[in-house]
Amino acid sequence: MAVQMKRIQKDIESINAFNASPGSGITRQTFSKEYQGAAAYVLDELKKIGAEISIGLGGNIRGRIPGSVAGGPAIMTGSHLDTVAHGGPFDGVAGVAAALEAARCLVEDRTPHRLPVDVVVFAEEEGSRFGRALLGSSIWTGKIAPDLLHLIADANGVNYAKAMAQAGLSIDDDCPLRSAGLKAMLEVHVEQGAVLEKKGCRIGVVEAIAGIRQFDVTIRGKANHAGATPMPDRLDALQTAARIIVAIDEMAVGSPNTVATVGRIGCEPDQINIIPGVVRFSLDVRDSDKSRLETATAGICRNIAEMCADRGVTCEIGELTHVEPVVLNDGIIQLLEKKTREKNAAPLRMISGAGHDAALVAALTPTGLIFVPSREGLSHCPEEFTRIEDVALGCDILLAAIVELAQ
Amino acid sequence: MAVQMKRIQKDIESINAFNASPGSGITRQTFSKEYQGAAAYVLDELKKIGAEISIGLGGNIRGRIPGSVAGGPAIMTGSHLDTVAHGGPFDGVAGVAAALEAARCLVEDRTPHRLPVDVVVFAEEEGSRFGRALLGSSIWTGKIAPDLLHLIADANGVNYAKAMAQAGLSIDDDCPLRSAGLKAMLEVHVEQGAVLEKKGCRIGVVEAIAGIRQFDVTIRGKANHAGATPMPDRLDALQTAARIIVAIDEMAVGSPNTVATVGRIGCEPDQINIIPGVVRFSLDVRDSDKSRLETATAGICRNIAEMCADRGVTCEIGELTHVEPVVLNDGIIQLLEKKTREKNAAPLRMISGAGHDAALVAALTPTGLIFVPSREGLSHCPEEFTRIEDVALGCDILLAAIVELAQ
Repeated sequence: MAVQMKRIQKDIESINAFNASPGSGITRQTFSKEYQGAAAYVLDELKKIGAEISIGLGGNIRGRIPGSVAGGPAIMTGSHLDTVAHGGPFDGVAGVAAALEAARCLVEDRTPHRLPVDVVVFAEEEGSRFGRALLGSSIWTGKIAPDLLHLIADANGVNYAKAMAQAGLSIDDDCPLRSAGLKAMLEVHVEQGAVLEKKGCRIGVVEAIAGIRQFDVTIRGKANHAGATPMPDRLDALQTAARIIVAIDEMAVGSPNTVATVGRIGCEPDQINIIPGVVRFSLDVRDSDKSRLETATAGICRNIAEMCADRGVTCEIGELTHVEPVVLNDGIIQLLEKKTREKNAAPLRMISGAGHDAALVAALTPTGLIFVPSREGLSHCPEEFTRIEDVALGCDILLAAIVELAQ
Repeated sequence: MAVQMKRIQKDIESINAFNASPGSGITRQTFSKEYQGAAAYVLDELKKIGAEISIGLGGNIRGRIPGSVAGGPAIMTGSHLDTVAHGGPFDGVAGVAAALEAARCLVEDRTPHRLPVDVVVFAEEEGSRFGRALLGSSIWTGKIAPDLLHLIADANGVNYAKAMAQAGLSIDDDCPLRSAGLKAMLEVHVEQGAVLEKKGCRIGVVEAIAGIRQFDVTIRGKANHAGATPMPDRLDALQTAARIIVAIDEMAVGSPNTVATVGRIGCEPDQINIIPGVVRFSLDVRDSDKSRLETATAGICRNIAEMCADRGVTCEIGELTHVEPVVLNDGIIQLLEKKTREKNAAPLRMISGAGHDAALVAALTPTGLIFVPSREGLSHCPEEFTRIEDVALGCDILLAAIVELAQ
């Protein structure tokens, strides 16, 4: 029983051949043409090893390798195929490829396992198309009601349900995931930070996943002529937004482990000679500690309101994503550490600043998250890189843990 | 001899019927379908009074009412038809309508005038399509070589020369404007500030027009994951841009009469969960005093470079517009003041913070600029409003001045 690095490499390359931005990183929006291509590749590979395919709520994909006992709770493993715009080739894909290869080995080696093993692909992990991170897993785990999918639309006004149907994904299992159906969930993912690289470790075992709050902030001042409006007479929405953006940064820098990011910004009317009347920007706040996350988020929101009032402009703050920090199961952490040591590697316990579908599933079943190193900590950019050797080591540990859990 | 308010109103309404954003202010980009419609209306009105039509360099339109002496330098009057996106109905249009109505009265009343009177429409005053303010008048006055028009493109990559040709404007007079051909230039324009309204005056006589420097600024940091990148490890281009935008504001507030505006901003990759790698924003700096303008501009640019270096990001600053402040002709100012008083109104001498085509023509011939009030000082927005009575008073004064100058 040994995972094959070449097959993992082929999976990653085959999936990334479906890319809307060749030459400029990887762009594969949920349910897009490229996404359909990548999903079809994974489904084909799953069919080759006799997996039972089903499409779950939200368009999440499952390929089940049945166990020797009929029914029984499953060991779930997988990740996501959607990417940010101009992202990297490993985020999500590494975990899907590792899950596929682990399942292949299990089947080919006829390794005895009582329980079923599910290879899964979560939809819309990044939130790049529909504006909400971890959307597919939120739907599947029952955090978001399926009828809301008609109301959640992309930038072109296409709603989630319609996009899913257009992608040919018709749901054949409309049950949300339940604790009773799961024994454990394991995800391999690239670290997306530089901790493993700095410490010289090849495997991270995640203890906790940061909670995420995402917001849309709109500041409304008054558009006016850039030449004819004296400075004291202005209600420049961008000037207030800029001060808020700086304050967000200063707050996050001053709070241990909290990170806060303004990733999107735009103004209206967006003309060189007009004072911006409206500015919209996004806010993303994360922390692995719930009370610290709440304190930071509340402080930022209060600060935004106060700064706007001081400067005579108005603001609206709309929450987009609300994911609590998750402490992962200690039994699974110890199992992953043991399997890592058996492969002659030193596991590093760590915190995940990035959100992961595993965080949603962790509410239902003991869940583990295996990190492999990201070169220079870069992710969500074309430069994102992880050595195939490291993905293969993650896959080895994943397979060993699955075999033990599925007994 | 009296100008007719109703005709002015009809002109303004007819021109604004050509609008790409009905219900959301006026949008009429230079050479667009809407622009062609508005220009055709003006050309028709000019033909009705026997004006000799010609299209000058850069697609600027001229309708000449010949004087009683063959040749001779002309009295020029007019303004522009292009608007900012979602702008108001009076900016530019008020001056075109006033020029049209003055010419109509001159012709209908058979007022004797030795010199020709030219009604003109300058192209691309706002710079909204091709990114440079006062572009049409800059070309016509020889500040920009006509062969550059193949290199100046809009956001869709259509160059100025091609857009002009597509709009059916073929140049039949390729001479730049010259001093010898002009006796004077007069423009009526809405104030776009609140000075007249605050002082309770209906007519402003402009002494000086602010100079303008416009720039594109690009800040380059490093895109990375919003969750997995600790605050100290970030090269967030937006965080540096926000600090620069605040510093620009503080500098302008601290300098008497200088105004500075960041009207456009965008970041890459513009995703909620990615630290911005690149931010681009516009900068517009104006002052009626040349040395103050230069000091302010140089200070801002130095500051941008220093702040970027301090924060480990790089920047590029590209100049888009470089228009010097213009002191207008004292003889014309006194003439306009006299004509204003003859209409029983009190002229207010003032500075124009906005740029105007008159500023370019002022380098060639004595030039005057008549301001009429803008309600609440609002301009470049759908709320822009000027009373027709005030436009008509401006037109009355314009006509009286033309008659005296054209003797």
